[in-house]
Amino acid sequence: MEFIINNDCFNKAISEVRKGISSKTPLPILTGIKIVVNKESVILIGSNSGIIIEKRIPLMIDGVKVLEIVQPGSIVIPANYLSEIVKKLPSDVHMKANEKQLITIQSDEIITHISGLNADDYPRLPDIQQNFCIKIGSNELIELFKQTMFAASSNEMKPVLTGVHMNFLDDKLVVVATNSHRLSRRELSIESDVNASIIVPRSSLLEFTKLFIDSGELKLFITNNYIVFQSKDMTLYSRLIDGVYPNTAGLIPKESKTRNRLTTNQFLKGIDRACLFASEWRNNNVNLSIVEGDKIKISSLASEIGKIEETQTIQMVEGQKELSISLDGSFLKDALKVIQEEEIMIQFGGSMSPIFIQPVGNPSFLQLISPVRTY
Amino acid sequence: MEFIINNDCFNKAISEVRKGISSKTPLPILTGIKIVVNKESVILIGSNSGIIIEKRIPLMIDGVKVLEIVQPGSIVIPANYLSEIVKKLPSDVHMKANEKQLITIQSDEIITHISGLNADDYPRLPDIQQNFCIKIGSNELIELFKQTMFAASSNEMKPVLTGVHMNFLDDKLVVVATNSHRLSRRELSIESDVNASIIVPRSSLLEFTKLFIDSGELKLFITNNYIVFQSKDMTLYSRLIDGVYPNTAGLIPKESKTRNRLTTNQFLKGIDRACLFASEWRNNNVNLSIVEGDKIKISSLASEIGKIEETQTIQMVEGQKELSISLDGSFLKDALKVIQEEEIMIQFGGSMSPIFIQPVGNPSFLQLISPVRTY
Repeated sequence: MEFIINNDCFNKAISEVRKGISSKTPLPILTGIKIVVNKESVILIGSNSGIIIEKRIPLMIDGVKVLEIVQPGSIVIPANYLSEIVKKLPSDVHMKANEKQLITIQSDEIITHISGLNADDYPRLPDIQQNFCIKIGSNELIELFKQTMFAASSNEMKPVLTGVHMNFLDDKLVVVATNSHRLSRRELSIESDVNASIIVPRSSLLEFTKLFIDSGELKLFITNNYIVFQSKDMTLYSRLIDGVYPNTAGLIPKESKTRNRLTTNQFLKGIDRACLFASEWRNNNVNLSIVEGDKIKISSLASEIGKIEETQTIQMVEGQKELSISLDGSFLKDALKVIQEEEIMIQFGGSMSPIFIQPVGNPSFLQLISPVRTY
Repeated sequence: MEFIINNDCFNKAISEVRKGISSKTPLPILTGIKIVVNKESVILIGSNSGIIIEKRIPLMIDGVKVLEIVQPGSIVIPANYLSEIVKKLPSDVHMKANEKQLITIQSDEIITHISGLNADDYPRLPDIQQNFCIKIGSNELIELFKQTMFAASSNEMKPVLTGVHMNFLDDKLVVVATNSHRLSRRELSIESDVNASIIVPRSSLLEFTKLFIDSGELKLFITNNYIVFQSKDMTLYSRLIDGVYPNTAGLIPKESKTRNRLTTNQFLKGIDRACLFASEWRNNNVNLSIVEGDKIKISSLASEIGKIEETQTIQMVEGQKELSISLDGSFLKDALKVIQEEEIMIQFGGSMSPIFIQPVGNPSFLQLISPVRTY
């Protein structure tokens, strides 16, 4: 195996596939990056038990030659050393591995030797069933995940809730995440005839949102155990979570006592300030109450330290003009942060019912937060 | 106590004095910021047992009114809350404390109440003896400290070595730091008739280098227990380290076997690469050897992983043209990083003698590094 590659290009690819590698792995070979060299490209693969990232570097990028293949072959190289070495090299990288897996990396007068591992011992990639293919724009999909995945649970006791539920229903994709105290749900119209209901780990989607920014149209494949996201030069495989996702459709409240229209950003800033003292509490308690008919009072109290309160004008109030409810301030902050619309409609069903948040003018996105009981 | 202050200005001052505050302090009152309001200014004070930072905010800054005093007085406020609250407030801050130390902070419709502490319980500032005053430019002094303090010891077993030795000899200031394996020494011509030898904690000088950037001419005061740095609006008091600093003058080698002139930045990059494997070793071993009469080979080896080596051309070699020495690569990196001159002269006295590094054309700055024994 031998090739000469543009330094920047190699660096970028290494840092991308490294995101798939965990330093804590029961399989030592997975601490390495697998490099496969064929006649037209170099392919880098990084993986842990949950995700696999595959990056392909072609001979030319945008009409510029970035790679010269001398000898096809494959090898596994410790990821941390490869990454650190290539970062510090001054110019094109000349990489060679002999049959004893001894790797030589040269750049100008700098020569490095490292021991590699046999590429045959690296786990095989899952097969992609080409018939279950869906096409979606990368940025649309990233937005969809960012608006939902934060609501998933971080508690491993209920594994299905640590994932995000993706429900493909012909030409509609419904994505839901919940930790059973809050819920976020987004819909997207897609061109597809796939019907599938899968649960994807939040951690995989987090990597997805970092790796596929501005990657154009993606192909999605669903297999028994994996969801696969594929762009022109990168493929991310994520293992699915086994189990049945709870039926969340019934949670959406049918009616409300009070509907309030608020300015998203101003309300978010108010909640952020109230959280300052709320964080001293077990549940980040922030109290919301409607005062003087058309104002909302945001307050929090930490008996040892002090209290903070402010009032904001409500754009529009419908229904009952009285209310007092306590919520987890950090849940409310998370919910407001992912809303891009200028205004939101908040519906309250009373101090013991979940609040229901929806951006004004966007019925495809909704969120629920349960109140905190305060005695 | 009551005043109205510009938000940005208050924010900046709080973040500056907070640097003096440690969250781990045996005196709970020191977790707070002392605010003293007089007719012409607001003074903020933050302190831990080692340093005290005092910041004065006048009524006007650059011709713009930033402060309005309503009622003089003083109070101590928990630093973390004050800092977080003021950061999140939208406009001018109106602050008030009543005789029960209850503080009200208001900005627009946002009202916060926090409990303060009695300012009389806050430790008094040390007295400054105005007769021991030296004037030095802030940036000159920062450079002086940055070029030396890194070499101090982090081992608390020998407290004097955790400090930096400042020796005022009439019109000369000599600053030395050493951990007994490496040493850095800088001289500066100053206008002063003070003779004093003091040891200042490295941690205080680190804060100094952050706080006094571009602060113009400073006044230095030396008291029995403190060194005091004073600019127009800020004063930093640092406690001194008790004890006698070792005599380091005799360590500077009189003669050398080999003198090599090298390009600072190129050599630094080579050492940085070699440190990649060196870090796997106990002593960050990097080997330097002169090869082919006019080249220096930089190499390091980690038996389990691999090795890295490169050769660089030496600008000029004087004396013996053979040498092989092992050094702590991170010490060498630290030494090279603080040299601003393009070229350095390295003198070797043999593989068991310390190396002596000096920027070409700057005799006021020199560094020593002891070799590592390799068996």
